[in-house]
Amino acid sequence: MSDTVGKPIKCKAAVCWAAGEPLKIEEVEVAPPRANEVRIHILYTGICHTDEYTRSGKDPEGLFPVILGHEGGGIVESVGEGVTNVSVGDHVIPLYTAECRECKFCKSGKTNLCGKVRATQGQGLMPDKSSRFTINGQPIHHFMGTSTFSQYTVVADVSVVAVNPKAPLERVCLLGCGITTAWGAVVKQPGITGSTVAVFGCGAIGLGVIATSSLVKASRVIAVDTNPGKESWARKFGATDFVNPTQLGDKKIQDYLIEITDGGLDYTFDCTGNVHVMRAALEACHKGWGVSTIIGVAAAGQEISTRPFQLVTGRTWRGSAFGGVKGRTELPGLVEDYLQGKVKVDEYVTHSRTLEEINAGFSDMHAGDCIRCVVDMS
Amino acid sequence: MSDTVGKPIKCKAAVCWAAGEPLKIEEVEVAPPRANEVRIHILYTGICHTDEYTRSGKDPEGLFPVILGHEGGGIVESVGEGVTNVSVGDHVIPLYTAECRECKFCKSGKTNLCGKVRATQGQGLMPDKSSRFTINGQPIHHFMGTSTFSQYTVVADVSVVAVNPKAPLERVCLLGCGITTAWGAVVKQPGITGSTVAVFGCGAIGLGVIATSSLVKASRVIAVDTNPGKESWARKFGATDFVNPTQLGDKKIQDYLIEITDGGLDYTFDCTGNVHVMRAALEACHKGWGVSTIIGVAAAGQEISTRPFQLVTGRTWRGSAFGGVKGRTELPGLVEDYLQGKVKVDEYVTHSRTLEEINAGFSDMHAGDCIRCVVDMS
Repeated sequence: MSDTVGKPIKCKAAVCWAAGEPLKIEEVEVAPPRANEVRIHILYTGICHTDEYTRSGKDPEGLFPVILGHEGGGIVESVGEGVTNVSVGDHVIPLYTAECRECKFCKSGKTNLCGKVRATQGQGLMPDKSSRFTINGQPIHHFMGTSTFSQYTVVADVSVVAVNPKAPLERVCLLGCGITTAWGAVVKQPGITGSTVAVFGCGAIGLGVIATSSLVKASRVIAVDTNPGKESWARKFGATDFVNPTQLGDKKIQDYLIEITDGGLDYTFDCTGNVHVMRAALEACHKGWGVSTIIGVAAAGQEISTRPFQLVTGRTWRGSAFGGVKGRTELPGLVEDYLQGKVKVDEYVTHSRTLEEINAGFSDMHAGDCIRCVVDMS
Repeated sequence: MSDTVGKPIKCKAAVCWAAGEPLKIEEVEVAPPRANEVRIHILYTGICHTDEYTRSGKDPEGLFPVILGHEGGGIVESVGEGVTNVSVGDHVIPLYTAECRECKFCKSGKTNLCGKVRATQGQGLMPDKSSRFTINGQPIHHFMGTSTFSQYTVVADVSVVAVNPKAPLERVCLLGCGITTAWGAVVKQPGITGSTVAVFGCGAIGLGVIATSSLVKASRVIAVDTNPGKESWARKFGATDFVNPTQLGDKKIQDYLIEITDGGLDYTFDCTGNVHVMRAALEACHKGWGVSTIIGVAAAGQEISTRPFQLVTGRTWRGSAFGGVKGRTELPGLVEDYLQGKVKVDEYVTHSRTLEEINAGFSDMHAGDCIRCVVDMS
């Protein structure tokens, strides 16, 4: 047993002090885990657009100061009383979508949106309504129940899952959000095998949807992105076609897709977060049966719209969060699939940064050539 | 064989000469059916809001002059060459949603939206692009492929189905639209048994959704209508609760429904055609799994909208036309269900009119106490 057990740990973390400010590397004190909590030594973390959304100040529910990050991989340093699902030394992935297996949502069998820690997580706190992070005595907010931009973090036991330690954490950390979100959105949608698919947006999520659609043998996978540099990426991940909407003149992307698919797509996915693209994705669906899934997160206050006739004539508009995946139940299997070469993970990593370089990692994300940047927290 | 076979028939019809005008009873000449067409002696017809929508001029695709009506019951007078699915003397219901069993849509097994006669039907013509109705040589447009406001009409053979002649046509004519639309929207939506349901709008469609939800044993059926007079109707058809949104003060109907159902409804149905109500129906759904179905037809140009977060957190927005019912395949069974007392039909009929009184029938529809008015065409 480590001599840190039961004691606060001082370590480095990237702190966002206020909306719109760059992150600052600080020494933070991480309190020991309380009952049903787990303290994790974070080794690697991805940077995701949701981190940037909150950092930028565009998220009206953003709280500051805060330690962001929700795509991490680490090793359990210590556990609080009553923790049974993970043990010291386990290789783990924190889960921003908890899975308590006891609430109405978990028991429904219909959704992965566990309600157990939702309220406090939204307040940037642990379930007992306090923070485990302080700097010179000042509490720092948690983020999405994970705060992986700290060398040590504390999470609720329902918000963490152990995975095969053979899997490199600098890769499977990405299963904490983007890749899993994409994978789940496809595998949990019945009918994609043998069907036509269009994927709007070729970031990490979009590429994941392309890869998974290809994996389950969709008959055609059309990638849509305004960045021509994404074509080679999309094809590498399994797209059969690439369309750049800015190259279509006056023609709307949905009309073009309907033309080239003899009536529209069986399935479409929005992976952009842009509400206008979400509409195009719906309207590109085939009359009578097309299903459009929203995965991207739109900015606050933005709304989607369409003519109701689109739905009355048989299109379905839906969405998913974390791909509908129940993290504790399903992530270990997904890690095995990765180890067996069935699910791509390595291919998403285009950039690597140290913790000190984390702001450069955020800048990487805005460049067109970055799919995922992994931060080495050591 | 009747001596009218192969000859034009002169009969009475209610003609709408121009947008916004009342119907006018005229003597119309109905040409004999051509190949794959059926001439029907219409005995009874319902009046539906879609007839009024086109009559009023609000439908930008409305064509005039026209013989409206799409909820009819009659007897086959004669058939054109190649017709095999109905015979002279059959009791039939015209179908505004055709079923050819040969097109991509029919063969898909996923939708009832047959494509065979869609284009010409939208142009107010028979499939050979001509009309069978003339007045003093002037062609009159068909409507929805049915034109049941004429004592004789001609329809495509894919647009008509024979039903048990024991069923009174003055009742089962209503299965040509409203009741079937409501029935199908519920029975084709898996999962309603044992679930909570809210139905927005208690016209014929809404009452049909209430009745069918009750029939398949939904655990709770909440009727929503701004007309307090609809409460007794809703309860008679099986509603367990009635909510009048105008009685809630500042509280939105969706927030009220979420409160009284511990998180929202499993299934909601919009039966109003009002896009604001459609939004409320979606947002009243339970996070994680609620499904909202749009049945009402909105006015041209109107759009539905919501925050995409509503979908990302697990709600589904869909719609159905003619309840997803394949008319030729399924209407005969629905008529049997009616004859066996399983499906309500008689209960919808509140008003009866003669053909001469048809404009009064349209007025009846605007009064709060009319569910369905049946017109005796004799």
